[in-house]
Amino acid sequence: MSKAQVTREHIIQQAAVVFNQQGYAGTSMSDIMQATGLKKGGIYNHFKSKDELAMAAFDFSVDLVQSHYTEALRGQRHAILRLRAMVETFCTLMAHTPALKGGCPILNTAIESDDTHPVLRLKARQAMDDWRRTLCKIITLGIDHQQVAASSDPSAVATVIISMLEGGLMMTQLYGEPDHLHHAQQHLFDYIETLKI
Amino acid sequence: MSKAQVTREHIIQQAAVVFNQQGYAGTSMSDIMQATGLKKGGIYNHFKSKDELAMAAFDFSVDLVQSHYTEALRGQRHAILRLRAMVETFCTLMAHTPALKGGCPILNTAIESDDTHPVLRLKARQAMDDWRRTLCKIITLGIDHQQVAASSDPSAVATVIISMLEGGLMMTQLYGEPDHLHHAQQHLFDYIETLKI
Repeated sequence: MSKAQVTREHIIQQAAVVFNQQGYAGTSMSDIMQATGLKKGGIYNHFKSKDELAMAAFDFSVDLVQSHYTEALRGQRHAILRLRAMVETFCTLMAHTPALKGGCPILNTAIESDDTHPVLRLKARQAMDDWRRTLCKIITLGIDHQQVAASSDPSAVATVIISMLEGGLMMTQLYGEPDHLHHAQQHLFDYIETLKI
Repeated sequence: MSKAQVTREHIIQQAAVVFNQQGYAGTSMSDIMQATGLKKGGIYNHFKSKDELAMAAFDFSVDLVQSHYTEALRGQRHAILRLRAMVETFCTLMAHTPALKGGCPILNTAIESDDTHPVLRLKARQAMDDWRRTLCKIITLGIDHQQVAASSDPSAVATVIISMLEGGLMMTQLYGEPDHLHHAQQHLFDYIETLKI
């Protein structure tokens, strides 16, 4: 990477943590300057606006989560084990990744932007679409391969899994107690077992 | 009510919708002025700061939800029916109450404040504590009255119910599609059945 690319990556990584913790409206360019140790001009050299930086930071955070899903799914062939791996990866990532200290970027961005920021909302929806598509594909293939009950509705199952994870994470973040996400994980493990043929 | 009280209530009600949709950091006093049709002085006559108004608005929204829970629980004696009534009330309220157009005030405030605003975070925790306490009490009494399986962990059940509702609502708000909250509701109805003796 060139020096300019290194600086750009540094800005994105630091900004991602700030945006994820403080939200879009709650983050000022001064916060970004403080987090990156750069002056305003040094940031505007790479990003035209707070909006442009927020988009890049969101993509960075979502890519980070997705790369862990890809890694977790590698080598798991059975649909039930693949669903479990998705749930487990989410819970482990959210509990232990410093870059995700502010919680799930999709959840945070969805809640903040749903009534106020159409472009950020679209980004959150696209990331959510990708997640839902991955889960639906696992379930559909599982039905084809007679690993998952044919009566399962892939879209409904995806909604149940994502809702439970995001809701459990919200409670864990609110109380600063890991128990809530653990309960959500255990409930989903039990639920996923009921989908098995 | 005196004229001053009427004005105060009017400000709180209008501000509650704005804060719930735009978030605390995303709401300016100009937004409140526009929503209430009052000048800045007219608002500061009743509230010393945006913070004080945000607290009153949050309490108003939470009280609104709680009064519907109280109403829904009246006349339901069996713990399983009481749990179903809590779930159904949440879903109906969030789908059809104009004052809650921005979604659940606890969820919105939790997500925004968890890393940034300790006083608002405390308000969100207190409201969440009340909700959890109500659910735990229903489950504990249900165990005592042999309506709910003694192996049920009231705190874990409360977390599962709240996480699923809040996560499902987040998805419904993000996509503008009621299906997600419907799937969450149906999943919880099935889950609550499994708690029955």
